[in-house]
Amino acid sequence: MREFLLYSRNGVTSPDFNLKDLPGSGGRMDLICRSIISALWLSNDMREDTKIKICLNGPPDPPLSLCFDGSNLKKLSPDERSIAIWLKKCLKYKDLANDSWMETHDGIFISKQDFYGLLDEIRNYGLYLLHREGEDIKEVKIEEDSAFILGDNIGLPNDILERCRERGEKKISVGPKEYFTSQSITLVHNEIDRIEKNSKSKKG
Amino acid sequence: MREFLLYSRNGVTSPDFNLKDLPGSGGRMDLICRSIISALWLSNDMREDTKIKICLNGPPDPPLSLCFDGSNLKKLSPDERSIAIWLKKCLKYKDLANDSWMETHDGIFISKQDFYGLLDEIRNYGLYLLHREGEDIKEVKIEEDSAFILGDNIGLPNDILERCRERGEKKISVGPKEYFTSQSITLVHNEIDRIEKNSKSKKG
Repeated sequence: MREFLLYSRNGVTSPDFNLKDLPGSGGRMDLICRSIISALWLSNDMREDTKIKICLNGPPDPPLSLCFDGSNLKKLSPDERSIAIWLKKCLKYKDLANDSWMETHDGIFISKQDFYGLLDEIRNYGLYLLHREGEDIKEVKIEEDSAFILGDNIGLPNDILERCRERGEKKISVGPKEYFTSQSITLVHNEIDRIEKNSKSKKG
Repeated sequence: MREFLLYSRNGVTSPDFNLKDLPGSGGRMDLICRSIISALWLSNDMREDTKIKICLNGPPDPPLSLCFDGSNLKKLSPDERSIAIWLKKCLKYKDLANDSWMETHDGIFISKQDFYGLLDEIRNYGLYLLHREGEDIKEVKIEEDSAFILGDNIGLPNDILERCRERGEKKISVGPKEYFTSQSITLVHNEIDRIEKNSKSKKG
């Protein structure tokens, strides 16, 4: 399994954002939508082995976490506006959210968990923090079950970084430039795709 | 220089598409917008060494070609809707377009050229065709000036493939899966970023 955990500093915790202004009124909902697309879609396929969880920390009612599960998504079209409409639909359930995941639509979940909660859920996973000064992902052993932690355009707060350190995260880099969150997700996927292909070739 | 040449089978050649339905009314304008974002943006920077040219072949008046030049773009925000608004602004000049490039806004150009015309412009460039059965990009020598040819969700028509063959293109693959056009652009950029970094390290 592959999981992406995205910490969104300003992503709004209400369905009342404007589809015509995802960056502003949504607190960079555009970035979140593109990250979901990169995490779960291939050209003619869904990535059924992948989940992306987004912890929203913007107004009016943070934190709220959402989960999109590639194994069970239906009817979604992979463009920003369509994904944003599903984010809105899911966020309408925010007042019912509690510490466990509630499936509001096929493959889409909401909970009141904060980012610590998301980290606690994946205790058995290899934990990787995307970081420009991390070790090149090509040089790092990636566990079969792995979770990748990403920030938005602002980055991760210190307490989250500290908690990741306590959990023994491995800092990894996906290349010599600073890439968008969504681009980093594509690069992580590609590297694991290559690892899995090589591993199959060896077995075969 | 890096150039991406995107052949869009159904991308509309009119500004009258609906911003609320980029995939349908725009003929996959969402895919075009994401490709422009992947081609020209980094996290805190523009890719000034990169252009992306899109040949639109949808109704009502094909072909039309657009060019976004990373060295001179201003005021654009890297989300699908914002990019689509600039596509609309540029397409308003379509009746003035001819065989040379007309700059309609800073770093944004339009012309009546077809895809053959775009290929003719880059006679001195290394030419690479993204193809799932191509040679792994990591095994291929990438020229300093290089152009990468991509299709949309439908793919490239046979006459374009034939013309590329005549031009001695190299078929390359970016990984073991079939990726979105925008994801493929990210993967190409990353590979060249790595090559350039290694080349600098050796020189240094």
